[in-house]
Amino acid sequence: MKNIKDYIRTIENFPQTGVMFRDVTTLLSDPTGLRLTIDQLVQLNTSRKIDKVIGIEARGFILAGAVAYQLSAGFIPIRKKGKLPGSTIHQNYELEYGESTVEIHTDAIEAGDKLLLIDDLLATGGTVAASVALVERLGGKIVGCSVVIDLPDLGGKKLIENMGLNVDVLCEFKGV
Amino acid sequence: MKNIKDYIRTIENFPQTGVMFRDVTTLLSDPTGLRLTIDQLVQLNTSRKIDKVIGIEARGFILAGAVAYQLSAGFIPIRKKGKLPGSTIHQNYELEYGESTVEIHTDAIEAGDKLLLIDDLLATGGTVAASVALVERLGGKIVGCSVVIDLPDLGGKKLIENMGLNVDVLCEFKGV
Repeated sequence: MKNIKDYIRTIENFPQTGVMFRDVTTLLSDPTGLRLTIDQLVQLNTSRKIDKVIGIEARGFILAGAVAYQLSAGFIPIRKKGKLPGSTIHQNYELEYGESTVEIHTDAIEAGDKLLLIDDLLATGGTVAASVALVERLGGKIVGCSVVIDLPDLGGKKLIENMGLNVDVLCEFKGV
Repeated sequence: MKNIKDYIRTIENFPQTGVMFRDVTTLLSDPTGLRLTIDQLVQLNTSRKIDKVIGIEARGFILAGAVAYQLSAGFIPIRKKGKLPGSTIHQNYELEYGESTVEIHTDAIEAGDKLLLIDDLLATGGTVAASVALVERLGGKIVGCSVVIDLPDLGGKKLIENMGLNVDVLCEFKGV
Protein backbone atom coordinates (compact mmCIF):
# COMPACT_ATOMS: atom_id res chain seq x y z
CA MET A 1 0.00 0.00 0.00
CA LYS A 2 1.26 3.49 -0.82
CA ASN A 3 1.88 5.81 2.08
CA ILE A 4 1.50 9.60 2.07
CA LYS A 5 5.08 10.30 1.05
CA ASP A 6 4.72 8.11 -2.06
CA TYR A 7 1.97 10.39 -3.41
CA ILE A 8 4.05 13.59 -3.11
CA ARG A 9 5.78 14.75 -6.27
CA THR A 10 9.09 16.62 -6.31
CA ILE A 11 9.56 19.41 -8.85
CA GLU A 12 13.08 20.72 -9.27
CA ASN A 13 13.92 24.43 -9.49
CA PHE A 14 10.53 25.77 -8.35
CA PRO A 15 9.88 28.51 -7.39
CA GLN A 16 13.55 29.25 -8.00
CA THR A 17 16.72 27.51 -9.15
CA GLY A 18 18.13 25.02 -6.66
CA VAL A 19 14.89 24.36 -4.77
CA MET A 20 13.34 20.87 -4.71
CA PHE A 21 9.65 21.74 -4.41
CA ARG A 22 7.59 19.09 -2.60
CA ASP A 23 4.22 19.20 -4.35
CA VAL A 24 1.16 17.97 -2.44
CA THR A 25 -1.23 18.44 -5.37
CA THR A 26 -0.58 14.85 -6.50
CA LEU A 27 -1.35 13.63 -2.97
CA LEU A 28 -4.60 15.59 -2.71
CA SER A 29 -5.89 14.84 -6.22
CA ASP A 30 -5.86 11.12 -5.45
CA PRO A 31 -8.99 10.13 -3.49
CA THR A 32 -7.02 7.62 -1.39
CA GLY A 33 -4.19 10.10 -0.82
CA LEU A 34 -6.62 12.80 0.30
CA ARG A 35 -8.43 10.37 2.59
CA LEU A 36 -5.17 9.11 4.19
CA THR A 37 -3.99 12.68 4.78
CA ILE A 38 -7.18 14.02 6.34
CA ASP A 39 -7.72 10.86 8.41
CA GLN A 40 -4.21 11.07 9.88
CA LEU A 41 -4.55 14.78 10.66
CA VAL A 42 -7.90 14.16 12.34
CA GLN A 43 -6.67 11.14 14.30
CA LEU A 44 -3.72 13.13 15.71
CA ASN A 45 -6.09 15.80 17.02
CA THR A 46 -9.32 14.06 18.03
CA SER A 47 -8.46 13.89 21.73
CA ARG A 48 -7.48 17.58 21.90
CA LYS A 49 -11.06 18.97 21.92
CA ILE A 50 -10.34 21.60 19.27
CA ASP A 51 -12.68 24.63 19.05
CA LYS A 52 -11.32 26.00 15.77
CA VAL A 53 -8.87 24.87 13.13
CA ILE A 54 -6.63 27.54 11.62
CA GLY A 55 -5.61 27.17 7.98
CA ILE A 56 -2.65 29.11 6.63
CA GLU A 57 -3.16 30.54 3.11
CA ALA A 58 -3.32 28.98 0.61
CA ARG A 59 -2.61 25.22 0.67
CA GLY A 60 -3.34 25.04 4.39
CA PHE A 61 -6.95 25.99 3.56
CA ILE A 62 -7.48 22.74 1.61
CA LEU A 63 -6.57 20.61 4.62
CA ALA A 64 -7.87 22.76 7.46
CA GLY A 65 -11.42 23.02 6.12
CA ALA A 66 -11.76 19.23 5.90
CA VAL A 67 -10.14 18.66 9.28
CA ALA A 68 -12.36 21.29 10.94
CA TYR A 69 -15.46 19.63 9.52
CA GLN A 70 -14.35 16.20 10.74
CA LEU A 71 -13.56 17.53 14.22
CA SER A 72 -16.91 19.43 14.38
CA ALA A 73 -14.86 22.60 14.87
CA GLY A 74 -14.91 25.98 13.13
CA PHE A 75 -12.40 27.13 10.51
CA ILE A 76 -10.29 30.31 10.72
CA PRO A 77 -8.05 31.66 7.93
CA ILE A 78 -4.66 33.27 8.37
CA ARG A 79 -4.02 35.22 5.17
CA LYS A 80 -1.44 37.35 3.44
CA LYS A 81 -1.78 41.09 3.90
CA GLY A 82 -4.89 42.84 2.61
CA LYS A 83 -7.07 39.81 1.92
CA LEU A 84 -9.24 39.73 5.04
CA PRO A 85 -12.14 42.20 4.95
CA GLY A 86 -12.69 42.77 8.67
CA SER A 87 -10.59 44.30 11.42
CA THR A 88 -7.24 42.47 11.63
CA ILE A 89 -3.95 42.26 13.45
CA HIS A 90 -0.81 41.47 11.47
CA GLN A 91 2.64 40.01 12.01
CA ASN A 92 5.72 40.50 9.84
CA TYR A 93 8.30 37.77 9.37
CA GLU A 94 11.53 37.36 7.47
CA LEU A 95 11.95 35.40 4.28
CA GLU A 96 15.27 34.39 2.77
CA TYR A 97 15.09 37.60 0.74
CA GLY A 98 12.85 40.36 2.11
CA GLU A 99 9.88 39.91 4.40
CA SER A 100 6.22 39.01 4.38
CA THR A 101 3.13 39.67 6.50
CA VAL A 102 0.25 37.49 7.71
CA GLU A 103 -3.07 38.65 9.15
CA ILE A 104 -5.95 37.29 11.19
CA HIS A 105 -9.36 38.76 11.99
CA THR A 106 -9.30 40.20 15.51
CA ASP A 107 -12.72 38.69 16.25
CA ALA A 108 -11.84 35.22 14.92
CA ILE A 109 -10.62 33.97 18.28
CA GLU A 110 -12.15 34.22 21.73
CA ALA A 111 -9.83 34.17 24.73
CA GLY A 112 -9.37 30.58 25.85
CA ASP A 113 -10.28 29.01 22.47
CA LYS A 114 -8.40 25.76 21.86
CA LEU A 115 -6.88 25.95 18.41
CA LEU A 116 -5.25 23.64 15.92
CA LEU A 117 -2.84 25.10 13.34
CA ILE A 118 -2.60 23.32 9.98
CA ASP A 119 -0.32 23.82 6.98
CA ASP A 120 0.94 21.61 4.18
CA LEU A 121 4.68 22.14 4.67
CA LEU A 122 7.10 23.25 7.35
CA ALA A 123 10.37 24.70 5.96
CA THR A 124 12.11 27.49 7.87
CA GLY A 125 8.99 27.89 10.02
CA GLY A 126 8.63 31.64 9.52
CA THR A 127 4.97 31.56 8.51
CA VAL A 128 3.98 29.13 11.26
CA ALA A 129 5.90 31.10 13.91
CA ALA A 130 4.19 34.33 12.82
CA SER A 131 0.82 32.54 12.89
CA VAL A 132 1.45 31.28 16.42
CA ALA A 133 2.28 34.83 17.49
CA LEU A 134 -0.99 36.16 16.00
CA VAL A 135 -3.08 33.54 17.76
CA GLU A 136 -1.40 34.09 21.12
CA ARG A 137 -1.83 37.88 20.84
CA LEU A 138 -5.60 37.25 20.60
CA GLY A 139 -5.58 35.05 23.70
CA GLY A 140 -6.04 31.74 21.90
CA LYS A 141 -4.38 28.56 23.12
CA ILE A 142 -2.70 26.48 20.43
CA VAL A 143 -3.11 22.85 21.45
CA GLY A 144 -1.95 21.27 18.19
CA CYS A 145 0.18 22.08 15.16
CA SER A 146 0.10 19.57 12.31
CA VAL A 147 1.80 19.63 8.91
CA VAL A 148 1.89 17.11 6.09
CA ILE A 149 5.57 17.62 5.20
CA ASP A 150 8.55 18.64 7.32
CA LEU A 151 11.88 19.64 5.78
CA PRO A 152 14.02 18.98 8.90
CA ASP A 153 17.21 20.41 7.40
CA LEU A 154 15.60 23.88 7.25
CA GLY A 155 15.03 23.96 11.01
CA GLY A 156 11.37 25.03 11.16
CA LYS A 157 10.27 22.23 13.46
CA LYS A 158 12.98 23.11 16.00
CA LEU A 159 12.03 26.79 15.81
CA ILE A 160 8.39 26.02 16.61
CA GLU A 161 9.31 23.54 19.34
CA ASN A 162 11.49 26.22 20.92
CA MET A 163 8.30 28.31 21.16
CA GLY A 164 6.90 25.55 23.39
CA LEU A 165 4.73 23.85 20.75
CA ASN A 166 4.85 20.25 19.64
CA VAL A 167 4.61 19.73 15.86
CA ASP A 168 2.99 16.66 14.31
CA VAL A 169 4.45 15.70 10.97
CA LEU A 170 3.04 13.15 8.51
CA CYS A 171 6.26 12.72 6.50
CA GLU A 172 9.65 14.33 6.04
CA PHE A 173 12.08 15.02 3.21
CA LYS A 174 15.79 15.45 3.95
CA GLY A 175 17.78 18.09 2.09
CA VAL A 176 16.70 21.50 0.87
CA MET B 1 -32.56 27.94 13.70
CA LYS B 2 -30.09 30.14 11.81
CA ASN B 3 -29.65 29.42 8.12
CA ILE B 4 -26.47 29.90 6.10
CA LYS B 5 -27.25 33.47 5.07
CA ASP B 6 -27.62 34.52 8.71
CA TYR B 7 -23.98 33.60 9.43
CA ILE B 8 -22.56 35.71 6.58
CA ARG B 9 -21.28 39.14 7.53
CA THR B 10 -21.36 42.17 5.22
CA ILE B 11 -18.44 44.56 5.27
CA GLU B 12 -18.92 47.87 3.48
CA ASN B 13 -16.31 49.41 1.19
CA PHE B 14 -14.06 46.34 0.87
CA PRO B 15 -11.95 45.83 -1.16
CA GLN B 16 -12.91 49.25 -2.54
CA THR B 17 -15.37 52.06 -1.91
CA GLY B 18 -18.95 51.22 -2.78
CA VAL B 19 -18.62 47.44 -2.55
CA MET B 20 -20.67 45.46 -0.01
CA PHE B 21 -18.31 42.54 0.69
CA ARG B 22 -20.11 39.33 1.68
CA ASP B 23 -17.74 37.70 4.16
CA VAL B 24 -17.97 33.92 4.64
CA THR B 25 -15.34 33.83 7.40
CA THR B 26 -18.06 34.26 10.04
CA LEU B 27 -19.99 31.38 8.48
CA LEU B 28 -16.99 29.04 8.40
CA SER B 29 -15.62 29.90 11.85
CA ASP B 30 -18.87 28.72 13.45
CA PRO B 31 -18.90 24.91 13.79
CA THR B 32 -22.62 24.76 12.98
CA GLY B 33 -22.24 27.16 10.05
CA LEU B 34 -19.36 25.14 8.61
CA ARG B 35 -21.29 21.90 9.04
CA LEU B 36 -24.45 23.28 7.37
CA THR B 37 -22.41 24.61 4.44
CA ILE B 38 -20.41 21.45 3.74
CA ASP B 39 -23.45 19.20 4.27
CA GLN B 40 -25.52 21.16 1.76
CA LEU B 41 -22.72 21.22 -0.82
CA VAL B 42 -22.24 17.46 -0.41
CA GLN B 43 -25.95 16.69 -0.55
CA LEU B 44 -26.33 18.61 -3.84
CA ASN B 45 -23.59 16.52 -5.43
CA THR B 46 -23.80 13.03 -3.92
CA SER B 47 -25.74 11.54 -6.84
CA ARG B 48 -23.36 12.97 -9.46
CA LYS B 49 -20.56 10.41 -8.92
CA ILE B 50 -17.81 13.05 -8.80
CA ASP B 51 -14.21 11.93 -9.50
CA LYS B 52 -12.54 15.17 -8.43
CA VAL B 53 -13.59 18.42 -6.78
CA ILE B 54 -11.99 21.61 -8.09
CA GLY B 55 -11.39 24.44 -5.63
CA ILE B 56 -10.76 27.96 -6.90
CA GLU B 57 -8.06 29.88 -4.99
CA ALA B 58 -8.26 30.88 -2.21
CA ARG B 59 -11.60 30.63 -0.36
CA GLY B 60 -12.80 27.86 -2.68
CA PHE B 61 -10.01 25.69 -1.25
CA ILE B 62 -11.58 25.74 2.23
CA LEU B 63 -14.84 24.29 0.95
CA ALA B 64 -13.60 22.05 -1.86
CA GLY B 65 -11.17 20.06 0.32
CA ALA B 66 -13.92 19.16 2.79
CA VAL B 67 -16.44 18.37 0.05
CA ALA B 68 -13.92 16.19 -1.83
CA TYR B 69 -13.21 14.22 1.34
CA GLN B 70 -16.92 13.70 2.02
CA LEU B 71 -17.57 12.58 -1.57
CA SER B 72 -14.52 10.23 -1.52
CA ALA B 73 -13.19 12.22 -4.47
CA GLY B 74 -9.82 13.87 -5.16
CA PHE B 75 -9.12 17.61 -4.87
CA ILE B 76 -7.69 19.80 -7.65
CA PRO B 77 -6.64 23.46 -7.25
CA ILE B 78 -7.17 26.22 -9.80
CA ARG B 79 -4.73 28.97 -8.85
CA LYS B 80 -3.62 32.43 -9.81
CA LYS B 81 -0.69 32.65 -12.18
CA GLY B 82 2.69 31.31 -11.08
CA LYS B 83 1.60 29.37 -8.00
CA LEU B 84 1.39 25.82 -9.39
CA PRO B 85 4.78 24.09 -9.64
CA GLY B 86 4.08 21.61 -12.45
CA SER B 87 3.25 22.01 -16.11
CA THR B 88 0.10 24.16 -16.48
CA ILE B 89 -2.34 25.68 -18.93
CA HIS B 90 -3.73 29.14 -18.23
CA GLN B 91 -6.74 31.26 -19.10
CA ASN B 92 -7.01 35.04 -18.98
CA TYR B 93 -10.23 36.79 -18.05
CA GLU B 94 -11.38 40.35 -17.66
CA LEU B 95 -11.92 42.15 -14.38
CA GLU B 96 -13.74 45.44 -13.96
CA TYR B 97 -10.34 47.11 -14.27
CA GLY B 98 -7.62 45.10 -16.00
CA GLU B 99 -7.40 41.35 -16.30
CA SER B 100 -6.36 38.27 -14.36
CA THR B 101 -5.15 34.74 -15.10
CA VAL B 102 -5.94 31.33 -13.63
CA GLU B 103 -3.98 28.11 -14.08
CA ILE B 104 -4.44 24.38 -13.68
CA HIS B 105 -1.94 21.51 -13.80
CA THR B 106 -2.17 19.83 -17.20
CA ASP B 107 -2.00 16.38 -15.58
CA ALA B 108 -4.65 17.14 -12.94
CA ILE B 109 -7.52 15.92 -15.11
CA GLU B 110 -7.90 12.76 -17.17
CA ALA B 111 -10.20 12.86 -20.20
CA GLY B 112 -13.68 11.85 -19.10
CA ASP B 113 -13.18 12.76 -15.42
CA LYS B 114 -16.44 13.93 -13.80
CA LEU B 115 -15.71 17.16 -12.00
CA LEU B 116 -17.36 19.42 -9.47
CA LEU B 117 -16.40 23.11 -9.37
CA ILE B 118 -16.64 24.89 -6.00
CA ASP B 119 -16.20 28.52 -4.99
CA ASP B 120 -17.49 30.67 -2.16
CA LEU B 121 -19.05 33.46 -4.23
CA LEU B 122 -20.36 34.06 -7.74
CA ALA B 123 -20.26 37.74 -8.78
CA THR B 124 -19.61 38.58 -12.45
CA GLY B 125 -18.62 34.95 -13.04
CA GLY B 126 -15.29 35.72 -14.71
CA THR B 127 -13.20 33.38 -12.56
CA VAL B 128 -15.68 30.52 -12.77
CA ALA B 129 -16.07 30.90 -16.55
CA ALA B 130 -12.28 30.84 -17.00
CA SER B 131 -12.09 27.78 -14.73
CA VAL B 132 -14.74 25.98 -16.78
CA ALA B 133 -12.74 26.73 -19.93
CA LEU B 134 -9.55 25.29 -18.39
CA VAL B 135 -11.27 22.08 -17.34
CA GLU B 136 -12.92 21.58 -20.72
CA ARG B 137 -9.62 22.17 -22.55
CA LEU B 138 -8.21 19.21 -20.59
CA GLY B 139 -11.13 16.97 -21.57
CA GLY B 140 -12.85 16.99 -18.19
CA LYS B 141 -16.63 16.95 -17.85
CA ILE B 142 -18.07 19.41 -15.34
CA VAL B 143 -21.12 17.76 -13.82
CA GLY B 144 -21.69 20.24 -11.00
CA CYS B 145 -20.92 23.84 -10.08
CA SER B 146 -21.79 24.91 -6.53
CA VAL B 147 -21.27 28.21 -4.75
CA VAL B 148 -22.24 29.41 -1.29
CA ILE B 149 -23.27 32.93 -2.34
CA ASP B 150 -24.69 34.28 -5.59
CA LEU B 151 -24.92 38.01 -6.33
CA PRO B 152 -27.64 37.77 -8.99
CA ASP B 153 -27.48 41.45 -9.96
CA LEU B 154 -23.90 40.95 -11.23
CA GLY B 155 -24.99 38.35 -13.77
CA GLY B 156 -22.45 35.59 -13.12
CA LYS B 157 -25.02 32.83 -12.76
CA LYS B 158 -26.58 33.68 -16.12
CA LEU B 159 -23.15 33.78 -17.75
CA ILE B 160 -22.31 30.28 -16.51
CA GLU B 161 -25.74 28.94 -17.40
CA ASN B 162 -25.27 30.30 -20.92
CA MET B 163 -22.18 28.06 -21.10
CA GLY B 164 -24.54 25.11 -20.57
CA LEU B 165 -23.84 24.57 -16.87
CA ASN B 166 -26.32 24.57 -14.03
CA VAL B 167 -25.18 26.45 -10.91
CA ASP B 168 -26.24 25.44 -7.40
CA VAL B 169 -26.43 28.35 -4.97
CA LEU B 170 -26.83 28.12 -1.19
CA CYS B 171 -27.96 31.72 -0.72
CA GLU B 172 -28.14 35.01 -2.60
CA PHE B 173 -27.70 38.71 -1.87
CA LYS B 174 -29.43 41.30 -4.06
CA GLY B 175 -27.58 44.48 -4.98
CA VAL B 176 -23.89 45.02 -5.65
